[in-house]
Amino acid sequence: MQVDNKDYRTIWYNADTKNIEVIDQRVLPFKFEIVEVKSATEMSKIILEMYVRGAGLIGAAAAWGIYLAAKENSDISFIEKSAKELSETRPTAVNLQAAIDVMIPELRIAAKEDRLELAKNLAQQISDNDANSCKRIGELGYNYIENKIAKGKKRRINILTHCNAGWLAFVDYGSALAPIYEAYNNGMDIHVYVDETRPRNQGARLTAWELGKHGIPHTLIADNVGGHLMQHGMVDMVIVGADRVANNGDVANKIGTYLKALAAYDNNVPFVVAFPTTTFDANIKNGVKDIPIEMRDGDEVLYMNGISEKEEESFRIAPEFTQAVNYGFDVTPSRLISAYFTEKGIFESVEGLL
Amino acid sequence: MQVDNKDYRTIWYNADTKNIEVIDQRVLPFKFEIVEVKSATEMSKIILEMYVRGAGLIGAAAAWGIYLAAKENSDISFIEKSAKELSETRPTAVNLQAAIDVMIPELRIAAKEDRLELAKNLAQQISDNDANSCKRIGELGYNYIENKIAKGKKRRINILTHCNAGWLAFVDYGSALAPIYEAYNNGMDIHVYVDETRPRNQGARLTAWELGKHGIPHTLIADNVGGHLMQHGMVDMVIVGADRVANNGDVANKIGTYLKALAAYDNNVPFVVAFPTTTFDANIKNGVKDIPIEMRDGDEVLYMNGISEKEEESFRIAPEFTQAVNYGFDVTPSRLISAYFTEKGIFESVEGLL
Repeated sequence: MQVDNKDYRTIWYNADTKNIEVIDQRVLPFKFEIVEVKSATEMSKIILEMYVRGAGLIGAAAAWGIYLAAKENSDISFIEKSAKELSETRPTAVNLQAAIDVMIPELRIAAKEDRLELAKNLAQQISDNDANSCKRIGELGYNYIENKIAKGKKRRINILTHCNAGWLAFVDYGSALAPIYEAYNNGMDIHVYVDETRPRNQGARLTAWELGKHGIPHTLIADNVGGHLMQHGMVDMVIVGADRVANNGDVANKIGTYLKALAAYDNNVPFVVAFPTTTFDANIKNGVKDIPIEMRDGDEVLYMNGISEKEEESFRIAPEFTQAVNYGFDVTPSRLISAYFTEKGIFESVEGLL
Repeated sequence: MQVDNKDYRTIWYNADTKNIEVIDQRVLPFKFEIVEVKSATEMSKIILEMYVRGAGLIGAAAAWGIYLAAKENSDISFIEKSAKELSETRPTAVNLQAAIDVMIPELRIAAKEDRLELAKNLAQQISDNDANSCKRIGELGYNYIENKIAKGKKRRINILTHCNAGWLAFVDYGSALAPIYEAYNNGMDIHVYVDETRPRNQGARLTAWELGKHGIPHTLIADNVGGHLMQHGMVDMVIVGADRVANNGDVANKIGTYLKALAAYDNNVPFVVAFPTTTFDANIKNGVKDIPIEMRDGDEVLYMNGISEKEEESFRIAPEFTQAVNYGFDVTPSRLISAYFTEKGIFESVEGLL
């Protein structure tokens, strides 16, 4: 999507240098920096240190990492060793392993001299597939918004989102934000309430940044506010992304999603989840019971990052003696979910995905 | 309650100086500073600049402000002028006006030479009444916890609270935290999940501080986490304070309270509201519809306060171009509330208060 009127993806092949470039998401929104990645080892570091994050983007980064390995040394043993390093950076990232599982078998049977070109084409394909899935979610979702949410309302449409499921989490377009971009690009008068998303503030840092850079009106709110807004008819739809969607339709997503789903349900506000179908995991029978929730470092709660003069710093916001607990995600029961937006269609029940 | 094994109130009369002392709550938890207040004008400033906050404490501060006025000049015209200044500092603070309404008529009919002593006694009485009401809420609430929450559980009891309704918001004991202090002082194995309470972080700053200083085990969590904890049986009871309780039992309290009530309801976790009955307003028929919600400065969302080296600073956490909206409170419908804890008793329905 656009940054100051110029089109960007989160990761791309530079035809001049034959290297890969990514947006360094660690320093957003205070700095916009593009980093050149020259080897598979560098790509592993880039993924591990979270220059890039988000399911779709991590998958594409791994694919381009394998391309960089083939560029350095097209022996299959070297490429496989690099793939192993890449897969160990974020062991729970499904798309990362999927990219490797697509590329390695094909590279293994290819002739040594064909591997570089093949790796480049496969990585480009994985990137494009991710972007195209998201683009499709955007088109389908826009249609839903137009027909089910905005119809008959001759006023601005207000959407609430939690965390960042925008183009920064994918190669382009995003999942939850894709329908919003599509609606905005088609001239709909749309406004987004952006949940700050403590403790890592992906809403305040990334969602606010990407919406604002594309020109979309948005307002940052504390995570506590959504219930009040919905009570008073100020939200027309809640849309979130998904980290995992279980067989029963339960959705694991950033911690706090469940509270917004409860508030939406209590106030008859449609609550929809947007995701590429690669996120659906039919093996998980019951999301609330079976999806393990990552516990992250309590320091993310105890300290806050922000900018004072020029440089970003980390600040303690609680007493010295206070400890924190930091669950990264929660699971929203399917009974609270109005619709699932995927590139394969929009479903009221997850049965459409089975 | 205790700070490092010494008993404190939030406001007190110093018999040596004949002035008033308060804890400066603006600099907690990073500094513990006691400020001497020597005149009614100084007390107005102390209230306006939020050295002191919380319904009960503001009422006591106004009462001691009138005492300080009488000390400076016991002419009734001077005392009334000071009372007017005090009442204008926080126009929506019910307890502030109530303290003035009790004291001024009595001072008006008293002889000039008796006014100082009378003002001192009345202010002390208002302070003591506030502390005693809270102490009573603590006793009744502890009884409830013991009989309805902890009974049969041979393990630590986990309570979740939102914002600060502890002794720092009153003269002593607090409302929501009073039953927790009482339980802890009586040897119950109790632990508190403290909602950070964005955007002003009263949980991270004040609740964590006062619990920790009294020795009570507690864990700070992002406001997003409570739903997940309740889904997994990790919370035995939610207890919050109240800014206003309406005739129909709806409760206005810090923004985000409603989301916790929804999660408690959805998981059969008792959700209780603790308050001195002065907070009950029978004139408000329907809380959700009729209680006006304060909108505060968006900068509270865009900036965060914390400590880096030694000094506390303010930091921006969102893009420059992003605006924020900042509702201070929300209203929790009575249907989500299990019990009302007051100094007059514990009620399942607000009808007990009518």
